[in-house]
Amino acid sequence: MTSTNSVGIVETQLFTFAEDEPFCLESGASLGPVTIAYETYGQLNADRSNAILICHALSGSAHAAGFHCAEERKPGWWDECIGPGKAFDTDRFFVICSNVLGSCYGSTGPMSIDPRTGKPYGLNFPVVTVGDMVRAQVKLIDHLGIDQLLCVAGGSMGGMQVLEWAAHHPRRVKSAMPLATTAYHSPMLIAFSEVGRQAIYADPYWNHGDYYDAGKKPDAGLAVARMVGHITYLSEESMHQKFGRRLRNIERYGYEFDTEFEVESYLKYNGNAFTRRFDANSYLYVTKAMDYFDLSQPSGSLAAAFAGSEHVKFLVVSFTSDWLYPSYHSKKLVSALMAVGADVTYLDIQSSWGHDAFLLEVETMTELLRSFLGRLVREEAVALPSSAPKPQMATTSRVSVIAAEKDLPLAHEALA
Amino acid sequence: MTSTNSVGIVETQLFTFAEDEPFCLESGASLGPVTIAYETYGQLNADRSNAILICHALSGSAHAAGFHCAEERKPGWWDECIGPGKAFDTDRFFVICSNVLGSCYGSTGPMSIDPRTGKPYGLNFPVVTVGDMVRAQVKLIDHLGIDQLLCVAGGSMGGMQVLEWAAHHPRRVKSAMPLATTAYHSPMLIAFSEVGRQAIYADPYWNHGDYYDAGKKPDAGLAVARMVGHITYLSEESMHQKFGRRLRNIERYGYEFDTEFEVESYLKYNGNAFTRRFDANSYLYVTKAMDYFDLSQPSGSLAAAFAGSEHVKFLVVSFTSDWLYPSYHSKKLVSALMAVGADVTYLDIQSSWGHDAFLLEVETMTELLRSFLGRLVREEAVALPSSAPKPQMATTSRVSVIAAEKDLPLAHEALA
Repeated sequence: MTSTNSVGIVETQLFTFAEDEPFCLESGASLGPVTIAYETYGQLNADRSNAILICHALSGSAHAAGFHCAEERKPGWWDECIGPGKAFDTDRFFVICSNVLGSCYGSTGPMSIDPRTGKPYGLNFPVVTVGDMVRAQVKLIDHLGIDQLLCVAGGSMGGMQVLEWAAHHPRRVKSAMPLATTAYHSPMLIAFSEVGRQAIYADPYWNHGDYYDAGKKPDAGLAVARMVGHITYLSEESMHQKFGRRLRNIERYGYEFDTEFEVESYLKYNGNAFTRRFDANSYLYVTKAMDYFDLSQPSGSLAAAFAGSEHVKFLVVSFTSDWLYPSYHSKKLVSALMAVGADVTYLDIQSSWGHDAFLLEVETMTELLRSFLGRLVREEAVALPSSAPKPQMATTSRVSVIAAEKDLPLAHEALA
Repeated sequence: MTSTNSVGIVETQLFTFAEDEPFCLESGASLGPVTIAYETYGQLNADRSNAILICHALSGSAHAAGFHCAEERKPGWWDECIGPGKAFDTDRFFVICSNVLGSCYGSTGPMSIDPRTGKPYGLNFPVVTVGDMVRAQVKLIDHLGIDQLLCVAGGSMGGMQVLEWAAHHPRRVKSAMPLATTAYHSPMLIAFSEVGRQAIYADPYWNHGDYYDAGKKPDAGLAVARMVGHITYLSEESMHQKFGRRLRNIERYGYEFDTEFEVESYLKYNGNAFTRRFDANSYLYVTKAMDYFDLSQPSGSLAAAFAGSEHVKFLVVSFTSDWLYPSYHSKKLVSALMAVGADVTYLDIQSSWGHDAFLLEVETMTELLRSFLGRLVREEAVALPSSAPKPQMATTSRVSVIAAEKDLPLAHEALA
């Protein structure tokens, strides 16, 4: 299933922190052992200046590109933007993606074995924050021998990690791409998180998080949580386009409670599929980390959070139909960044795809990311890795001029 | 708890259809016996021309105004607009509100006894539609000796009933007020309905709808359904105003899964409170009726649905922050009504309260409804009931001029 512009067959790797260094969490708890699952694509250049960290969203994994084996049907979650000649060009950049702390794709989380009991942590796993997730990534970057990332990029919860890097580890990043995200989780986001958690708590098979050795998991509750999430990732308009009021496999109403509408079928399918790939306890922990995220604290000023980030180059992107992370969140972020004199490029992209647009608007995103990265390569004189094919010039595109417009009104015209 | 402008102590009444007339449903099933619970406020005038039917939303009841007893803490659900001197002035109008078929507040629904088994229907209750709900209301109006309603009014699902009256029983209504509603349930609305239903199905105490004689009800599932609903009735902005990121009764994060944020507490409280007043099976039936609602069918043309309604005077209202029933739904409706030459007044009211605005923007709604009804009273020469206090002139207000502007662009300036 690989193609010419794919990174091809890749393998998830594991990095376990040194045992003599306990990993201290924001809560005050300490955690150990800690393992972080990660993948890398492309090669480090001689001066280790071409590394890009990709941060995943709620349900993502380290598997951002390529295939784990020739039989794998779907590539990694951001394969459309990571690969030879793609937006994150692996002929040019060394791309890293790691699974967040608390998740269930190889990094330490509630499914992992608690060394004190020899059993899975369950709810004994400590609550982690986006700050904790990022500090674990910092240790991974140290382990890989990278002093400074050329770029850290991600959408949704991935974008929160990007902002955390820029705010709290500014010396370690040259540029940051927070996409379809926010600097603080809004009450509506907290509300949707909490509904998902309540759906899991309500499932008797959840059993206060202690289900790993039981025959049944809280699949019904997790499916409901995912269905709620799925609605919020779409827009009213995209749902009209995708489903309308079409019935599935029937001509007229059945006057019963079977699945009748296409949209119901889609939600049920995705809710059920999710239970085969995600852990309910991880859903609790990762959503809780998002709810706690608020860069404006403790000072109350978002600009204060970025006081040391004035040298970081930012590409901030929002999407007009994203009602979950509305554009005004990005605009507030941009105002804070400009207040500290950071170099900010901001686009509010016209799209009907809702929050999912950051993954679905591939052409626009490719043009935009390539242009931004091309400028970085020129300005930072980033060398190619030794094994790279002959250099390509960064694409000249309409969006490459936007960086110069940062004193103009924040909402730029949409790309075509 | 009554006040001078309250309708005072009221009683819910029951009307049971004649046993020899089976009530045929759109599905083809027939239902009987059928009882409709209703309340009335004010008095019919001599020529029975001052009757207004109020239609309730998903979880509403016939108890729209006043108190059931002196000790009742909260009045009926639309008490702020129904009473002496209020928008629906009970000194002038005879106001009726009935509980919809399929609900659980006295009208026949899944909690009612199935005469074939002597036990509650549960899922043996036939699926009903908004059309069925309204035909039951028509029988109630017949029973009350009213040939033509001066007005039928309601928001959300109440507005769907209003549109059903205007489209399918146009000779029975002089005017219609569909508020914060739609002529067809959108895929996003269906999606939220289905998530709520899935949360109920996932509760083992639901037991395929057979729980009335069991010790436990599917409260956890119903609470999750209600929590999802509650989020959709608010707006991002109103949630910021109401809750922000405030913690409840704690100074800082507890790093545990307790209820910590105000918004979580609000949702949980309302979700749990709902289980004490509403039946889970009714939630399934009423949401299903909403999902089936699509006045553009079977012709595919919304205007065709209103072909016989050209004499009905419409007041259509939407709210700018209502993302569940967005303004463009009302604008499509207005276009269809104007295509058949109906008399339409439309307002898109600037409000930050989301879908709930139709209940919360009391001052604006009062001014608007009073103006529209005042015009009706003048144009239709509606006489006062014999026992009425001396007549008041309809308030002269800024919005009274809007009826004349119906050829102007659809989105009027917001009221202050």
